[in-house]
Amino acid sequence: MRTAEMINANPAETGVDRALIARVVDALVACSQACTACADACLAEESVAELRRCIRTDLDCADVCAATARVLSRQTAYDAEVTRTLVEACVQACATCGAECAGHADHHEHCRICAEACRACEQACRELLAAIG
Amino acid sequence: MRTAEMINANPAETGVDRALIARVVDALVACSQACTACADACLAEESVAELRRCIRTDLDCADVCAATARVLSRQTAYDAEVTRTLVEACVQACATCGAECAGHADHHEHCRICAEACRACEQACRELLAAIG
Amino acid sequence: MRTAEMINANPAETGVDRALIARVVDALVACSQACTACADACLAEESVAELRRCIRTDLDCADVCAATARVLSRQTAYDAEVTRTLVEACVQACATCGAECAGHADHHEHCRICAEACRACEQACRELLAAIG
Amino acid sequence: MRTAEMINANPAETGVDRALIARVVDALVACSQACTACADACLAEESVAELRRCIRTDLDCADVCAATARVLSRQTAYDAEVTRTLVEACVQACATCGAECAGHADHHEHCRICAEACRACEQACRELLAAIG
Repeated sequence: MRTAEMINANPAETGVDRALIARVVDALVACSQACTACADACLAEESVAELRRCIRTDLDCADVCAATARVLSRQTAYDAEVTRTLVEACVQACATCGAECAGHADHHEHCRICAEACRACEQACRELLAAIG
Repeated sequence: MRTAEMINANPAETGVDRALIARVVDALVACSQACTACADACLAEESVAELRRCIRTDLDCADVCAATARVLSRQTAYDAEVTRTLVEACVQACATCGAECAGHADHHEHCRICAEACRACEQACRELLAAIG
Repeated sequence: MRTAEMINANPAETGVDRALIARVVDALVACSQACTACADACLAEESVAELRRCIRTDLDCADVCAATARVLSRQTAYDAEVTRTLVEACVQACATCGAECAGHADHHEHCRICAEACRACEQACRELLAAIG
Repeated sequence: MRTAEMINANPAETGVDRALIARVVDALVACSQACTACADACLAEESVAELRRCIRTDLDCADVCAATARVLSRQTAYDAEVTRTLVEACVQACATCGAECAGHADHHEHCRICAEACRACEQACRELLAAIG
């Protein structure tokens, strides 16, 4: 991933710190990938019936993070309100999925890693929200 | 699209009116498709340089609506907060894109149709927000 | 969905019949939605452990159809090879998912409807492949 | 990105080398992000009218790589034909976008970096095709 270089090479300006945007995009992309993989790993577990909620929150979090990563990768005609509400939705999706995965972390390594990705992403999104006010 | 039949065939329950969910999913999917097509049509216009903001809002709206359609299509382990914040982000994306496209509606048929899709989707999302409280 | 109107309002030309493109996009979007909803409905079934392969093929088919719908919605700088290989991948995803869902159609209404959506989409994609040569 | 750890933590087996899958997923995710960012950077350039084809190929490549990354992140009920045809479509999308971006690499840093991401992804996909036969 060369997110920071790509963000810096964009002639458009958003007024938001570019290093921060790049860090958030990286966290979103990593979280989306982890959630997609965790949903599949949960599906393959013998205890799949007890992992339904985990699979659901994984799939939602993967979709919301992927969409948010795309929106934040764009700097042309930046709109603070679209950004803010979407990042707020992402914080919620990451918090919900992170808590659910954390509950299975002792039994499933994929849930443990995914919970960490969700928490890191939630934290990065909160930093961005603080920065855009 | 047989969204309502699929929503009704799901053994999971969300407590939200199923006909309303199906209607919102249909509006989201239609809006996402219209925005994807409008971005491309704007790109093909001679006046592309004046349509930059329209293309940007189209791409964002397409991504946010697509993610929201997926999340709302799921009923297993429903989470009201994830739903609410995401639908709020969708209202914002649709309102922003709808207003931008409306400003080009007199010159470009694709912007006129896309503005209508955005407004219909925004309205459907607002109804859902009212229903989930 | 006003796909045909949007395709017609695009100033770019692909040389492919526009009514056919619109029909394929509609089938792709419908299939992607059905597969997303079927995956979730399968997840909510008591027999989820026997529906693992169905959920997997649903998720794949939803992703491939969604990407293909976006690519086909674009007419600017049309590339026949990108289109052809992607639509071929879509035929494969729809055929695989349609066959899997058909195997559960007697027990699950959502699989029955989803199998129909997959078959309709596969058929539409094959017509497009025949048209682009 | 902790793709390799996630792939290894999955109880399902595909028969394909896991380190290779992880490497391809990483390349796909990086390419999808670069293409999304490059499309937006091109849109912000003064010479946007001459970058139409680049924006189009960027958007297509971003969509195809994102879908392929998701499919490859799944190991449950692996299907070689779905994988193969999709990865072939991805090779085509990356080759087309990489060649287009390379043509603008002397003028635009974002096109230069994006071309590299496309080529790296195309190469990784070809290795995977060779491995799955």
